[in-house]
Amino acid sequence: MTSSPPDYQAFYQGRSVMITGGLGFIGSNLARQLVGLGARVLLIDSLISDYGGNLFNIDGIEDCLKVNIADVRQQSTMNYLVRGHDVIFNLAGQVSHIDSMREPYTDLEINCRAQLSLLEACRHNNPAVKVVFAGTRQIYGRADFLPVTESHLVRPTDVNGINKAAGEYYHLVYNNVFGVRACSLRLTNVYGPRQLIKHNRQGFIAWFIRQVVEDREIQIYGDGEQLRDFVYVDDAADAFLRAGASDDSNGQVFNVGGAEAISLRQVVELLISVAGTGRYRLISWPQEKKAIDIGDFHADSSLINRTLGWQPTTSLRDGLRDTVAFYRANLPHYVPSGSPVGAL
Amino acid sequence: MTSSPPDYQAFYQGRSVMITGGLGFIGSNLARQLVGLGARVLLIDSLISDYGGNLFNIDGIEDCLKVNIADVRQQSTMNYLVRGHDVIFNLAGQVSHIDSMREPYTDLEINCRAQLSLLEACRHNNPAVKVVFAGTRQIYGRADFLPVTESHLVRPTDVNGINKAAGEYYHLVYNNVFGVRACSLRLTNVYGPRQLIKHNRQGFIAWFIRQVVEDREIQIYGDGEQLRDFVYVDDAADAFLRAGASDDSNGQVFNVGGAEAISLRQVVELLISVAGTGRYRLISWPQEKKAIDIGDFHADSSLINRTLGWQPTTSLRDGLRDTVAFYRANLPHYVPSGSPVGAL
Repeated sequence: MTSSPPDYQAFYQGRSVMITGGLGFIGSNLARQLVGLGARVLLIDSLISDYGGNLFNIDGIEDCLKVNIADVRQQSTMNYLVRGHDVIFNLAGQVSHIDSMREPYTDLEINCRAQLSLLEACRHNNPAVKVVFAGTRQIYGRADFLPVTESHLVRPTDVNGINKAAGEYYHLVYNNVFGVRACSLRLTNVYGPRQLIKHNRQGFIAWFIRQVVEDREIQIYGDGEQLRDFVYVDDAADAFLRAGASDDSNGQVFNVGGAEAISLRQVVELLISVAGTGRYRLISWPQEKKAIDIGDFHADSSLINRTLGWQPTTSLRDGLRDTVAFYRANLPHYVPSGSPVGAL
Repeated sequence: MTSSPPDYQAFYQGRSVMITGGLGFIGSNLARQLVGLGARVLLIDSLISDYGGNLFNIDGIEDCLKVNIADVRQQSTMNYLVRGHDVIFNLAGQVSHIDSMREPYTDLEINCRAQLSLLEACRHNNPAVKVVFAGTRQIYGRADFLPVTESHLVRPTDVNGINKAAGEYYHLVYNNVFGVRACSLRLTNVYGPRQLIKHNRQGFIAWFIRQVVEDREIQIYGDGEQLRDFVYVDDAADAFLRAGASDDSNGQVFNVGGAEAISLRQVVELLISVAGTGRYRLISWPQEKKAIDIGDFHADSSLINRTLGWQPTTSLRDGLRDTVAFYRANLPHYVPSGSPVGAL
């Protein structure tokens, strides 16, 4: 390739960029792209046990960026760390819906209060920065219509969804009132290499992938006909790059979803077919999970396509194949020996 | 009157009821109705300086109820206080939009985190209670259409609106997931006796009323053509009574608005006409207030009318007349000598 990179990629050459949750799943994949684009990258991560941060996620690029272990809940630390960056990709979060119902205050402190802290830090110490927030489709709750657009009501079904909604709203208010440029990407089900798979509380797709890689049985709740859409992590990272480089995103929220809706049963069958291992079984819903399930969901991502030119480019088959290959090559870094297997 | 009270009023005879923010504006007026209906009433209030709590608000009924000074942010206190009640009217809040932008953490602790604390307290110590939350139309932000129904997007324009939205969402999730019955009333501009008027950060209508009572000049931002709707506090209290007595409200949100939309200039002219004192002048918008203004707003309250039979019964003229008369008779209890006058 001798052609120039697109403008939004060229934008990052020599730019100073910070990623909160930078050792996590999406953060580390985004960091890889940013390093490749010539950005000066600082990763912030708390490496909280059982959360998604993993030093192996930056294996091979650790000399091309900086890592600062810190917790976004610490205001004074963030006041210092936000300084001097052109863009902050704000991905630090507690992502387990089940955990949010068991420990609602922890979820509130991380997903709600710490977002306010980051924005206050920017307002007072780096008001010219652009902040891109990792939102979630979970804030929509059960869909009134499909595919879900950004005009759909926000109606969270669990504490995590509420706090993520509040965290997103803070970004928009700081954009509109204080001029700290910010936007939010409402991600659907992101999958790919470097996702936490050592327990099952951070998204069912990662857990399914682990079962297949370990040649175990996947358990699907209900009849498996629930529709979802899936985004490969490199595509999700591309959405962050576009949003961070353009002022057209300021004050906006964008769905970032998959190209098509597919049932859980179909995605599991595709996964097993691609991997050549694993099997599945339908089981009845556990009560605590049923209570916060949202039924069918898929997102309409046409707004980010029109505004920033983003669209997913990785087919589900290719993405699942590459993901399975990654975990086969690196399983011990994601499933420590002695960790529970197969348990729900 | 020899006829029986309506079912929702009879419901409260002998019931144990707690009101958070019970010494405040709406809380104390609600308490007066509950005392009249034979309820056993406990008021919780922190009496934070500059907030709405005022012991004079229960003048004449102080021997018919109990008062417990406490802060809803104190989890252990709330764990104890919620026990044994049939209904909790959850009205404690930080209500100043301007303050929420100056001290966002205080607003978060009171309007967001403390709501979670109250619900956790109920879940573990009184799961059979019914909770009615005082929500606000502010969470809608700028209206996409008028009148605004509950199907309108939640898009807060300030930190207070975000935290009030999160507080409301917690109530709905605890209803849906944990079975702690709860609902929210999204109040528009409530006015009437016992509202804080000693400063101007808790609603413009109360401030306007004070200016008229003191025969001063009201300053209206912009051209005065902004539409609003107004609810007399006794009508608002009636909505709480209906919501608390009926399981049809569980898990629901209801707009509680005025019978008609009216411009600020018109309401001020009506107020001056009713009072026979005061005057007004149009002035340009202060920047920090313009940034969080929402333009025209009025609510569609047909859902609560259909579901609970509620409708406003006090005309704006009658309500303003009674309010002015109340403050004329009791001004020293609401405007301490030496407090600032007329200042914005």
